[in-house]
Amino acid sequence: MSKAAKYQVIGKSRQRVDGVVKATGKAVYAMDLELPGMLHAKVLRSPFPHARLVRIDAGKAAALPGVVTVLTRETLDGMNPYFGSAYKDQTIVALDKVRYDGDPVAAVVADDEATATEALALIETEYRELPAVTDIADAIAPDAPLVHEQVAEADELHGHAYRVPEAFRGTNICYAYDYARGDVDKGFAEADEIFEDTFTFPQIQHYPLEPHITIARVEDGHVTLWASTQDPFTLQRHIAEFFSIAINKVRVIVPHVGGAYGGKLSVKNEPLAAALAWKTGRPVKITHTSEETFRTITRHPARFRIKTGVTRDGRLVARECEVHMGTGAYADYGPRVSQKAGYRAPGPYRIPNVKVDAYTVYTNAVPAGAFRGFGTLQVTWAYESQMDMIARKLGFDPVEFRVRNLLKKGEVYTRGDTLVDCDLEAGLRRTAKALGWGKKRRTNRGMGLSCCMKDGGGTYKVASAAIKLNSDGSAVLFTGTVEIGQGCRTALAQVAAEELALPYEAVTVAQLDTDSTPYDAATNASSSMVIMGLCVERAAAELKRQLRRAGARLLKCKADKITFKDGQVRAGKGKRLSYEQVLNLTFGAKGGELLAKGTYQDVHSKKAVLGSPTTFWETSWGGAEVEVDPDTGVVKLLQYVSTADVGKAIHPLQCEGQDEGAVMFAIGHSLMEEMQYDNGRLLNPNLIDYRLPSFNDVPGNFKTIMVEDGNGPGPYGAKGLGEGGLMPVAPAIGNAIEDAVGVRVRELPVTPERMWRAMRQNG
Amino acid sequence: MSKAAKYQVIGKSRQRVDGVVKATGKAVYAMDLELPGMLHAKVLRSPFPHARLVRIDAGKAAALPGVVTVLTRETLDGMNPYFGSAYKDQTIVALDKVRYDGDPVAAVVADDEATATEALALIETEYRELPAVTDIADAIAPDAPLVHEQVAEADELHGHAYRVPEAFRGTNICYAYDYARGDVDKGFAEADEIFEDTFTFPQIQHYPLEPHITIARVEDGHVTLWASTQDPFTLQRHIAEFFSIAINKVRVIVPHVGGAYGGKLSVKNEPLAAALAWKTGRPVKITHTSEETFRTITRHPARFRIKTGVTRDGRLVARECEVHMGTGAYADYGPRVSQKAGYRAPGPYRIPNVKVDAYTVYTNAVPAGAFRGFGTLQVTWAYESQMDMIARKLGFDPVEFRVRNLLKKGEVYTRGDTLVDCDLEAGLRRTAKALGWGKKRRTNRGMGLSCCMKDGGGTYKVASAAIKLNSDGSAVLFTGTVEIGQGCRTALAQVAAEELALPYEAVTVAQLDTDSTPYDAATNASSSMVIMGLCVERAAAELKRQLRRAGARLLKCKADKITFKDGQVRAGKGKRLSYEQVLNLTFGAKGGELLAKGTYQDVHSKKAVLGSPTTFWETSWGGAEVEVDPDTGVVKLLQYVSTADVGKAIHPLQCEGQDEGAVMFAIGHSLMEEMQYDNGRLLNPNLIDYRLPSFNDVPGNFKTIMVEDGNGPGPYGAKGLGEGGLMPVAPAIGNAIEDAVGVRVRELPVTPERMWRAMRQNG
Repeated sequence: MSKAAKYQVIGKSRQRVDGVVKATGKAVYAMDLELPGMLHAKVLRSPFPHARLVRIDAGKAAALPGVVTVLTRETLDGMNPYFGSAYKDQTIVALDKVRYDGDPVAAVVADDEATATEALALIETEYRELPAVTDIADAIAPDAPLVHEQVAEADELHGHAYRVPEAFRGTNICYAYDYARGDVDKGFAEADEIFEDTFTFPQIQHYPLEPHITIARVEDGHVTLWASTQDPFTLQRHIAEFFSIAINKVRVIVPHVGGAYGGKLSVKNEPLAAALAWKTGRPVKITHTSEETFRTITRHPARFRIKTGVTRDGRLVARECEVHMGTGAYADYGPRVSQKAGYRAPGPYRIPNVKVDAYTVYTNAVPAGAFRGFGTLQVTWAYESQMDMIARKLGFDPVEFRVRNLLKKGEVYTRGDTLVDCDLEAGLRRTAKALGWGKKRRTNRGMGLSCCMKDGGGTYKVASAAIKLNSDGSAVLFTGTVEIGQGCRTALAQVAAEELALPYEAVTVAQLDTDSTPYDAATNASSSMVIMGLCVERAAAELKRQLRRAGARLLKCKADKITFKDGQVRAGKGKRLSYEQVLNLTFGAKGGELLAKGTYQDVHSKKAVLGSPTTFWETSWGGAEVEVDPDTGVVKLLQYVSTADVGKAIHPLQCEGQDEGAVMFAIGHSLMEEMQYDNGRLLNPNLIDYRLPSFNDVPGNFKTIMVEDGNGPGPYGAKGLGEGGLMPVAPAIGNAIEDAVGVRVRELPVTPERMWRAMRQNG
Repeated sequence: MSKAAKYQVIGKSRQRVDGVVKATGKAVYAMDLELPGMLHAKVLRSPFPHARLVRIDAGKAAALPGVVTVLTRETLDGMNPYFGSAYKDQTIVALDKVRYDGDPVAAVVADDEATATEALALIETEYRELPAVTDIADAIAPDAPLVHEQVAEADELHGHAYRVPEAFRGTNICYAYDYARGDVDKGFAEADEIFEDTFTFPQIQHYPLEPHITIARVEDGHVTLWASTQDPFTLQRHIAEFFSIAINKVRVIVPHVGGAYGGKLSVKNEPLAAALAWKTGRPVKITHTSEETFRTITRHPARFRIKTGVTRDGRLVARECEVHMGTGAYADYGPRVSQKAGYRAPGPYRIPNVKVDAYTVYTNAVPAGAFRGFGTLQVTWAYESQMDMIARKLGFDPVEFRVRNLLKKGEVYTRGDTLVDCDLEAGLRRTAKALGWGKKRRTNRGMGLSCCMKDGGGTYKVASAAIKLNSDGSAVLFTGTVEIGQGCRTALAQVAAEELALPYEAVTVAQLDTDSTPYDAATNASSSMVIMGLCVERAAAELKRQLRRAGARLLKCKADKITFKDGQVRAGKGKRLSYEQVLNLTFGAKGGELLAKGTYQDVHSKKAVLGSPTTFWETSWGGAEVEVDPDTGVVKLLQYVSTADVGKAIHPLQCEGQDEGAVMFAIGHSLMEEMQYDNGRLLNPNLIDYRLPSFNDVPGNFKTIMVEDGNGPGPYGAKGLGEGGLMPVAPAIGNAIEDAVGVRVRELPVTPERMWRAMRQNG
């Protein structure tokens, strides 16, 4: 049987389950929802990066007709104000201090948004400004002002409890990760050449088209949230803890979500919304403006000092990595992002001696948290840039230099972790070939390559899926994976249909609702296709077990004789029943259903550096060709090749879309995106002043290559994807720039100005 | 251990799960819901009881600004217009004829209700009136005009397919039920006395405080309904059939429901709402007015000719029952109601020779369908009135005469059915005693008793419940039983908590949503406490099996050593883990859940007359004391004793509330309620002209007695209740009237005018 014939549903680009409603504008987002008696909230935010809140008086605001309540530190009415992802270091409104330009100080609830906005201006505040540390360097300087004077209560984040290290009490460092193998000093001693460089990565914003929106209702001690979230179960638990109630008293319903990219993980404005609903006894909606989105969560700006020792024959012998991640005023996911950045910092190379230190640093900037790539882009930018610098210096071809050091399939990345699960060299060569590597370059044009790897699938994952088979043989899939544009509901429905021998159209996907949807740790870490895919596969297997049993009884045969095809159970010639018949005969009526659940949980292993071996390695390669304008500094991306190891593409078109989207994201931070501060004031929190890539910035020649070796642990050998495509972009561009004009950039984004200055400095 | 200590949660009147939100006005009903882009529909209704629709022109209406569309037979655009419960004899708008005063002719969809209402007046119609048959007698007369010229397609209704009998083609009879045992002619030949009487029962309306309201959304071939329904799964299937789609493409969400009483079973205005949503591509809401509710569904008016043969020593030897049920213009549940009326017509007595014929009769009146009591009240009114008439004539005390003939516990009602499961005599004597039976009566005052029985729990039931145990040990219950005021969600949560050894507060009940809630045949037939109660009990047992297995692994003991107490698994001294610990240790994280399902399905038996033995016998006794004003005919209910066999009261206060409510309902049709027609025009479709019982009509002395013998098949020996209380009221009052003034009434309601005339005729 040919490969194509092997599968009926997967491997084909089926119409998205949410395609029509989204394309026709009928998809209902949190913004579209109205509840009976619903009120609207607006947030007063700090204009200072760091200040003591001396006085706040909401009397005039509260008196404005149409205003229902104003929440300030004075009107908490005994309510717990603390929340946070890794640490409970954040408050719904400022208590004593404000810590960044945009820190919530008060919230007005009114009959409509206009009234709430008007009332914001009537809140009287008095601040005493404090010295601010907006960037990492200032924040880690000796005697830097402290963003947090006190250590916040730590929380468990997806199975792992983070702690502020004792050694860094009294500093702005709130988490530290370290790792070492071999003897890095000995390694450097053995090296013929040592390279030490510091790379920086800007603070950027996710900018989902849909901002953070939450509607909260609190009734009789039950909290219901309609939230634009990608992490409903974590949110459910956080809200339960916020109110000290059981988690069955919190229900999170997820409408369509208009993009997330990590920015809608864990907990954001939801505790504030819930607090306001509790206080008013009515449903409350908070809709962020774009400017507020910019002031809510970002990607960590980073500084990465990377020191690498190499032998003359091109073997890496030692690498020291020091990564500082600026997490802004509140930790959010910062500790975990830093941990992952540190874990991934050495890169996919065979290096006997490694030492890594990664730090999470509080600053007086907008908080930074999870963001597609999750700490990886900051480090791939550095290590893959430096690989080219080394190759260039030692006179190696960058491809060959990498190949000499790349881990082989089956090799160890760190002790206890999953062995490397793909052929890194093959991917690199394939990418180089597709790019036209080795062709003669024209003046001011250059090519660059890179090869990157991250542990994919998240840590300590627990997830389940359920499938209900209705009495007419149609199926409903329950999955906690949030559809944030990545097409998971479509691909998971394909898996369910394939496994149940049903047509794709026979499977619908239920709305995500924490009451009825089985638990899923989070929609993150490119995990869904593998982890939720396995849950669906297992739920289908359990459902088939039930069908087999019922079918065998009805067909009077042994259960192991039953096969499944075209929505039927079969037991040889002429012995076949449709699922509908099986159910109707079993229940004696057109009613009843079969219900099955499938569960995945990560292995815990003390041997593994992160406590749990990675689910799979998310590997990707990039090839860029650029042209640099020597007069303006404009870097034009002429060509880009993105190669991703997807194991098996369940829905090829969506895989390509994910990968292309990933590249476009990375073009942003490579060439244009950067949140800029002036004395701690955010200058560009809007799309006029902050430039996102548009269709004009799509590379002239843009190729996506899917490697389908079936080497993933997911259904049909699938791996996750969607983050990998971002990793190689910046270093590939940086390497191409040096190839083009002989100038090495160590700072992102490579704006025309920065490029122009770099050429002038080098020239 | 004392009985009281045996249970922790059940048997106690806990706070209702929906109590606070309903009492504080925060419960969200379908009426309160607004969807983005939602439109409003109003229905144009026939002013004639029977007419040919010659012409309809909606041009002017459609042109009114704000009107989005008008649906008439001219604008069906190929859509299937047929729907119906037992038969698909109803259309969403009139095709060729209108068949009752109120029959939907067209629907206007507009931006708001006012515009839609305004547009109704612009629809031009031309009718040709046809002779109408509004009551049963006219409809069954030879050569009566036919309400339906053609036989409609039959549908399966909860496992049973009804058919129009061949013998009655070309008449208005659309269903016939017959039953016989012994030889009724021989029986009458053996009788010493034969009594033949005809009793009538009025057409009455359910009058739920909340009218029929549906919001429909059709998107990409998926239909979502927010409906005020008590039968979401039947509705789901009907809508799927209406659009010829799979049932997973139809999602019914049930908000709080403001009363139903059978009137919200199966399918009412939902197909029209769905058709309008399909046509407009936007959500459409239909909100009935009270007048429309009166013109949607009613209780069957009935004529019952009952002929009973008795020996001189007071033994019933033969009974012939001929029941005609007026089902109005469309059959709705009529065939099943008639079947049940026929099945229950002989009463709970030992009668060797029985013959029953029951007929469903189309008339040009508002359709009649399911209504609390379901065909029973029409027959108990007759048989329990006649029992007193016989006793009086033969000189027996009514109690002793009944006792002589009542079935004993364990006796057969009909072959193949469940044996009588309670002590009918004991309940009758207890009721008589509580009433003060045998006390000397004052002038114009009298007492009456009655004893009634119906098969409870419905037929061909299939249902499941699911319970999810969250990672913090809190539980969510999924049940398809609709909370229509009866308190089922509270009682079922009590069963779940009791079985899982959790506090009552640890269980929440999920919103009813056909996507995520397991199938339940319907919320009808007083079935929930037994059938859904058993489902919950079984789901809990399965959950405990999972907990036992996990607990045994963690506590390193055998699974059968595990016991459950206070939310813990225990295996002897010191070996105990909370459910939270069990889950967290099992999943290695604060996540995951256990999910279990429990299922009930009726036994099918060809031996049983109705194909399936009754789940339990719903038995009740009534005692009334009245005073009749000889000058005005006003019947005053001085005292009423209602005795109900509930098996075991899971929530005693709710049981009493259900029983008291049932009596109040029956006071309505006994003394005041009646829909009145003049030449087929409905005269009193509103609460000014149609009198419902109010608090003024509560009996001066009102007792409710719960018989708790633990003889039910439900959890803890529970039976269903809620309908039983209605059955004895009218005959007890009728018997008391004769006792008071010597006048026998055979026609309900006993309005002052009717009473006054009866006294004049008899006097």
